[in-house]
Amino acid sequence: MNYPILDTINNIQDFKALKEEQLPALCEELRAFMIEHVSKTGGHLASSLGAVELIVAMHYVFDSPKDKLVFDVGHQAYVHKILTGRKDAFDTLRQENGISGFPKHSESEHDVFNTGHASTAISAALGLARAMKHNGETGKAVALVGDGAMTGGLSFEALDDAGQEKIPMLVILNDNQMSISKNVGGINNSLTMMRTNRAYNAFKRWLNGILETSSFGKKLGKRMERFKNRIKQFFAPNLPFEEFGILYLGPIDGHDVRKVIKYLRRCRELNKPIILHAFTTKGKGYPFAVENPEKFHGIAPFEVMTGEVSPQRQKTCSEVFGETMIRLAKENDRIVAITAAMSAGTGLQPFAEQFPNRFYDVGIAEGHAVTMAAGLARGGMRPVVAVYSSFLQRAYDSLLHDVCLQKLPVVIALDRAGLVGADGETHQGMFDPAFLSSMPYLAVYAPSTQRELVAMLEMAVSRTEPAVVRYPRGSLPDTPMQNPVEFGKWEILEPIRDVTVVTHGTLVPLAQRIAKENNAGLVNARFLQPMDADLIAYFKAHQTRLLVLEENTVSLGEKLALAANPCKVRSIALPTEPIPHASVSRQRERYGLSEAHVTEALRALKEET
Amino acid sequence: MNYPILDTINNIQDFKALKEEQLPALCEELRAFMIEHVSKTGGHLASSLGAVELIVAMHYVFDSPKDKLVFDVGHQAYVHKILTGRKDAFDTLRQENGISGFPKHSESEHDVFNTGHASTAISAALGLARAMKHNGETGKAVALVGDGAMTGGLSFEALDDAGQEKIPMLVILNDNQMSISKNVGGINNSLTMMRTNRAYNAFKRWLNGILETSSFGKKLGKRMERFKNRIKQFFAPNLPFEEFGILYLGPIDGHDVRKVIKYLRRCRELNKPIILHAFTTKGKGYPFAVENPEKFHGIAPFEVMTGEVSPQRQKTCSEVFGETMIRLAKENDRIVAITAAMSAGTGLQPFAEQFPNRFYDVGIAEGHAVTMAAGLARGGMRPVVAVYSSFLQRAYDSLLHDVCLQKLPVVIALDRAGLVGADGETHQGMFDPAFLSSMPYLAVYAPSTQRELVAMLEMAVSRTEPAVVRYPRGSLPDTPMQNPVEFGKWEILEPIRDVTVVTHGTLVPLAQRIAKENNAGLVNARFLQPMDADLIAYFKAHQTRLLVLEENTVSLGEKLALAANPCKVRSIALPTEPIPHASVSRQRERYGLSEAHVTEALRALKEET
Repeated sequence: MNYPILDTINNIQDFKALKEEQLPALCEELRAFMIEHVSKTGGHLASSLGAVELIVAMHYVFDSPKDKLVFDVGHQAYVHKILTGRKDAFDTLRQENGISGFPKHSESEHDVFNTGHASTAISAALGLARAMKHNGETGKAVALVGDGAMTGGLSFEALDDAGQEKIPMLVILNDNQMSISKNVGGINNSLTMMRTNRAYNAFKRWLNGILETSSFGKKLGKRMERFKNRIKQFFAPNLPFEEFGILYLGPIDGHDVRKVIKYLRRCRELNKPIILHAFTTKGKGYPFAVENPEKFHGIAPFEVMTGEVSPQRQKTCSEVFGETMIRLAKENDRIVAITAAMSAGTGLQPFAEQFPNRFYDVGIAEGHAVTMAAGLARGGMRPVVAVYSSFLQRAYDSLLHDVCLQKLPVVIALDRAGLVGADGETHQGMFDPAFLSSMPYLAVYAPSTQRELVAMLEMAVSRTEPAVVRYPRGSLPDTPMQNPVEFGKWEILEPIRDVTVVTHGTLVPLAQRIAKENNAGLVNARFLQPMDADLIAYFKAHQTRLLVLEENTVSLGEKLALAANPCKVRSIALPTEPIPHASVSRQRERYGLSEAHVTEALRALKEET
Repeated sequence: MNYPILDTINNIQDFKALKEEQLPALCEELRAFMIEHVSKTGGHLASSLGAVELIVAMHYVFDSPKDKLVFDVGHQAYVHKILTGRKDAFDTLRQENGISGFPKHSESEHDVFNTGHASTAISAALGLARAMKHNGETGKAVALVGDGAMTGGLSFEALDDAGQEKIPMLVILNDNQMSISKNVGGINNSLTMMRTNRAYNAFKRWLNGILETSSFGKKLGKRMERFKNRIKQFFAPNLPFEEFGILYLGPIDGHDVRKVIKYLRRCRELNKPIILHAFTTKGKGYPFAVENPEKFHGIAPFEVMTGEVSPQRQKTCSEVFGETMIRLAKENDRIVAITAAMSAGTGLQPFAEQFPNRFYDVGIAEGHAVTMAAGLARGGMRPVVAVYSSFLQRAYDSLLHDVCLQKLPVVIALDRAGLVGADGETHQGMFDPAFLSSMPYLAVYAPSTQRELVAMLEMAVSRTEPAVVRYPRGSLPDTPMQNPVEFGKWEILEPIRDVTVVTHGTLVPLAQRIAKENNAGLVNARFLQPMDADLIAYFKAHQTRLLVLEENTVSLGEKLALAANPCKVRSIALPTEPIPHASVSRQRERYGLSEAHVTEALRALKEET
């Protein structure tokens, strides 16, 4: 395709040399460019389409990297990448050795702070602003934050801290009334009130009109702000931000790039924390994405003319989970489901429709999801919290302190456990086995087939201890179970031999091929916790040599090395380092989980004296 | 001492049979009783003194356990324990096999939800309220929450969720303008505004007067609430809570027990989420505690007549840390310190006074403390976050996602690592080695003497990777260093022999005695990460038998078992189960870290064939 303006932009200087009146046209080109490219690579299209004008205006007004632009979550930052020298790399988006789908400092000095999880940007921006103050630098820290990320407690903690101090920090609230799913919660109601209070908005228009007339507006300074705040106490709809000592501006149309620029110029001059509230439409400019922003949130490659993704061949684990939940809920009226703004991604949407009174979407608030589940469990319910592995990291203490120490029967359905592919390092579900391993009473189930997943969910909700059932992104084989699932017992898939492979989950098929070919034993470690003490005693008694394979940072390998000591144990696991985006199969290869490397390790262990 | 009313109360029924006019006198008796007992056992006195009337009123109006009373943090709940059948056990407070200093469901059905860490109560109460709704029960969930705990993001997430729904839940905001240290942050400013806005308060008094006249007030119902909210938009100072769809009542005097009862009775009738805002004085009724609430927050046994605690003999690690920080800050103007409402506990108070511009108290908001530190580090500063081990659990993802994945040079000064004694299970610093072990690039320092602590802090702030320096509650020996600290190297304290003990931190003196007596080697594993690869290679080459001692859930033992495989490795570590309150030495004994048990294990390892 042909992009008359965009084709002339190779770096941020080219962009800043444009005339302001060229920007609306540029925004349209940026949309077409992103649709063209993301249709081939897949990616977070809807969020990026919604933030085009905001990001164009940010770069037009502020001077990155002197000014520090932080993108909350970061999946909306494609335009930022295109404008800061990565346009030509855009067809490598999310591909191995290509550019990341999230800001990465290693990619560009303009990516000042890496993001991926929600609600971190205001904290980070405040730290950057304070550092600039210490250094006597004059830049401003600017955080672009979606309204969904505002429901995360970390955003609140940061706003609460920011209000203490006169610090040049700007939060642009990108309000599209969505997180990934439709937004929920009181904050959202409050934003809705702002969106609709006409009398107040008329006053704001007048007041903002004054601020927009630059010469007069500039002189207003503190006096005007005080006046404005006092006036607002009379007009005031409930404005949450000024509670925090933060100046609130807006709401404005976030797709009117010249208006956004005007506001940002004014914000640039004010030496205090400011929130600028902008309305945008998620998916703006691509009708399929506007209609179905959830589908286009993170999307696989698709057909531009139809918005269609090639149909998947097999049921995902998320779908199997969602279906199983509906069946279990019919059988047991104490079962309720909880999600942190991920009803679609976790497969709970059908459950939510069928059992609206037994479904809680708490917003992007994983900590609260888990602690609230603990309360439900104490009250006699059987809550199941569906959450991605990397996002459960945000509820570590809720799980430990509120669920496990109290031995409450909360079940965590842990999706996206293991390597996740294109989303890269912030989204890898590779830390949970290690961080779950010290939690009191916690059972950790690791299904290797879809039927095991079903059986394990059934078992987890029928028992009385806290439980995590971890399963990968995408599918598991839909093969028959050889042996029924027994609590705390591992499954012998190939008879134990002098050398035996122990693994779980996604790696079982690979291990099975290799074990068969090499006359090795194979154990499916269905439970990471508790481990199978009888089988471990057998290993010890027979001095079995163990090759432990894990698609996560080492956990089972270490535990077996100690529990089966002094058996010979070799471990192949993911390193404790960031694992960048690539296909899952390439990520496995790269970190030693390839057929060739595992075979070699197995043979070496056999031959060791 | 003599307690005319209290002496008649053996359980909650006795209490509820009292006449309302007896309650003010009872409150005074409860204060005297707590001062008498806590002066002998130590405990969280100031918070409990401040909450006497609130808790008396809660139990008088609500019917526990049908109504669910949840105490945020839980250290203010002593009166609750006294009234619910544990008065006679009160001299066993925080003693081994005695009653806990925090709510414990295992102790009483009235302790409906265990607490210990801040900001969990609203989430838990919302879960309990939802469970009651599912069960068709008519009770109300009531959370007593301090204003300090309101700065935690989890409280915000819960309020945001609660506002969505008509649910019988009451949050009593116990506003003493303190968390543990003096309160900070925008929310606090906002509360201050409420405290001082006279016109609004006059209006509130009028309005609350109406609500108090019970017959009329009862009829007001929804219409009145709507009216009240609309009126408030004109009077409104900035009220943060009603943003969330939650009815705000108050502020009232939280020491006027009969007024509190009146309000609670009204709240009991309303089927929606409510916040009742009460002012209290931390330490109320004991002049020494009012004057110095921070000292009396958690206090050792003291002299009632003077408020004096017997002086400690040795400098605490917190003090050593605080002093070292001042010295390092003088040498390096990039060093800044951060605390989450623990300036005194972490030893940072003198630093805060000397370097007010380089000190950040972010409130009870550990996640933000760490992510904000990541921002400071990206901006070129050298932030040091001082936090207790068990509270770092609340910043797991901030440390992993924002600090470690980006390899930012943030230093965590991890206080209270290891067993903590009387605070018991929620406060044990026993999980950090396991949960830190998979974090990319993270160095984990484990000093065993005060001088090592100093040297390690110096090293940590001079290097470029993220670091945790973990040290215990209380003191470490002030002994000379045998060998300078070298990054990633362990220290050989007794020459490596066939059987060698490997340990770190607080256990080194015990291990040294045992190793000497039994002719065993001894290694001080100064770095939990990275481990000393050379020494491990030596172990492997010589088939050294290793006894690994840890005052935390197993971590180093497993890692060594794998890294030194197939050396014989035995591990003595804390179990992954809740470890209740007792003295640290008794806790050690109980879990196998006694001289006798370790000696026995060492001998068994020696004699093994």
